[in-house]
Amino acid sequence: MRIAVIGLGLIGGSIALAARERLQAQTLGWDPDPNVLEIALTRGAIASRVGSLADAVAAADAVFVAAPVGSLPELISEVLAAAPADCVVSDVGSTKRAIVAAHGDERFVGGHPLAGAETAGIEHARADLFEGATWYLTPTQTTEGILYERLHRIISGLGARPAALDADTHDRLLALVSHLPHVFANVLVAMAATGSASDADRLPVVGPSFRDATRVAGANSGIWTDIYMSNRDALIPVIDEAIAHLAAVRETLDSGDAAALTSWNEAAGDDHRRLIAHQLAGGEWHELRVPVPNQPGVVAQLALELGRLGVNIADLALYPAADMTEGVVALWISGEDDASRAERLIGDLGFPVFRP
Amino acid sequence: MRIAVIGLGLIGGSIALAARERLQAQTLGWDPDPNVLEIALTRGAIASRVGSLADAVAAADAVFVAAPVGSLPELISEVLAAAPADCVVSDVGSTKRAIVAAHGDERFVGGHPLAGAETAGIEHARADLFEGATWYLTPTQTTEGILYERLHRIISGLGARPAALDADTHDRLLALVSHLPHVFANVLVAMAATGSASDADRLPVVGPSFRDATRVAGANSGIWTDIYMSNRDALIPVIDEAIAHLAAVRETLDSGDAAALTSWNEAAGDDHRRLIAHQLAGGEWHELRVPVPNQPGVVAQLALELGRLGVNIADLALYPAADMTEGVVALWISGEDDASRAERLIGDLGFPVFRP
Repeated sequence: MRIAVIGLGLIGGSIALAARERLQAQTLGWDPDPNVLEIALTRGAIASRVGSLADAVAAADAVFVAAPVGSLPELISEVLAAAPADCVVSDVGSTKRAIVAAHGDERFVGGHPLAGAETAGIEHARADLFEGATWYLTPTQTTEGILYERLHRIISGLGARPAALDADTHDRLLALVSHLPHVFANVLVAMAATGSASDADRLPVVGPSFRDATRVAGANSGIWTDIYMSNRDALIPVIDEAIAHLAAVRETLDSGDAAALTSWNEAAGDDHRRLIAHQLAGGEWHELRVPVPNQPGVVAQLALELGRLGVNIADLALYPAADMTEGVVALWISGEDDASRAERLIGDLGFPVFRP
Repeated sequence: MRIAVIGLGLIGGSIALAARERLQAQTLGWDPDPNVLEIALTRGAIASRVGSLADAVAAADAVFVAAPVGSLPELISEVLAAAPADCVVSDVGSTKRAIVAAHGDERFVGGHPLAGAETAGIEHARADLFEGATWYLTPTQTTEGILYERLHRIISGLGARPAALDADTHDRLLALVSHLPHVFANVLVAMAATGSASDADRLPVVGPSFRDATRVAGANSGIWTDIYMSNRDALIPVIDEAIAHLAAVRETLDSGDAAALTSWNEAAGDDHRRLIAHQLAGGEWHELRVPVPNQPGVVAQLALELGRLGVNIADLALYPAADMTEGVVALWISGEDDASRAERLIGDLGFPVFRP
């Protein structure tokens, strides 16, 4: 397996390290900064030096483009122009609509690992960065099934859990669970540091709740300005909703209604437990096999529909029939409940489904 | 040293454990729940069983009242009625104005350790809970100097860093650095769980920034309803300010001004680094000695004025003169800069100051 990584920062460098260590892949990489390339070589993230982006991807089975969101459309176009016909190309950008809309190529699948760290750069890359992390994939009706399966398998191999989602839902979801927490963190540090609520010359000592809530404050502008810009139409309504929530809390405080404050806080506790329980859901695995016509979009359709239902596909394999007219998709689903739901859904979609 | 703890939950139990292990204190304690008393005995937090709150404090040198904010005023009155004349009484409530206003007794000093954990209860108490934590004290002009010194010394001995602050400033500060982050956490989980920004049946997978930002969501209502209620007049303007900040971010997003987004994010990064650097400030210690008249309020005045300047008193000792008409306060200050500022301030207040 030859995997190329374009952009060798924290994420790209970690993909390359994980691909070598965990998948025994042959990794090539390219970065506009020669120092970064040098460190990637020294750290063993890439096997050898190449002269250009085109050289890095020319013989690849899979390419990951790991650059700031603003530069992704152009870089992905360059990669698609230079990559082989049977190579899957993905990216790791934090917003997906613009990128997916820009690339109708059947080899391209948008991606986004929910992993990162406070510290950027190849120096901090590590092979276990994606261990247990959700890695969103945004296939479309044009996505090639065999290439999607390869990407899914690679991402599982890196230690992550692939989850299919359409690009619109992805961007609204991320505005809520990632971009809004970043906005909140920035607001909290600005308020604490400018001291409107404290003495003029004094920075407050902050406790553990503040430190946790602001860990991502002022995150790398090289990444985050692009994220905010590319997702602003999804983030604005989410901020409006947050303002409405805060105004409601303010009213409850103003009314002095202790019972209402308790209800509000208890509901938040319930929500928190549900979110965490959902996060930790796991357990036994169930395999489903689905004979499917060998045509574009079928694998993507299954992955998207199951994703929409909240069913996580832990692993996925595609077995084309000898004559290439029909194949079998094998899906591994965590938990009997989710497996049963998946079975029903797939039946409803008109596909036969059986358990081996 | 005999230390009594009233209320043996996470905080009270940890005070008792730390007092025994680190100060070799004889600890007594009382809790309305007999099961909690039993566990406190088994875990070695308290040395023996007593029949009432009055029995626990009757011979104490110091008493900590560690109960929910709403029940503190009454409990502190009971403790002050039963405690000896030379016993210092403190509490650990998260808001201070109401409690301090209710107790003019020269033996009482309001307190608030910035420590806690997601899990409440004596079962989770531990002797190192306060290691390195800021512990606010809110002395007033009536506070007895010798008793204040004893409390300061005990709190340092528990591993914490005492910091003096007037009760008003404390409550405004905590609304900003603790209560607002809790409100934000509750808003985030409510939005993520009710799914207005995601598909109806689906709970989103959440990444590390969301998990950190919501760790305190739905914190124990038995504590937090009291906190919100007792501090609502300080918290409401802070929420208004947060809404104004969010509205400004929304406008910047709406304008599509990437440079303005970058400036905003970079400023947050600078604020974050300043807050963290301030938090980690430390290094060498400098001792200052201040001869002071032995009268109520002097030690509290010094502590408050230095606190106002942002100078942290790492340790403090009071050496009364033989005739009790005058004494010497020894202060240990971290860092030459802060020590020099403290020296100037104390001189400006009209006290002689020298370095031993």
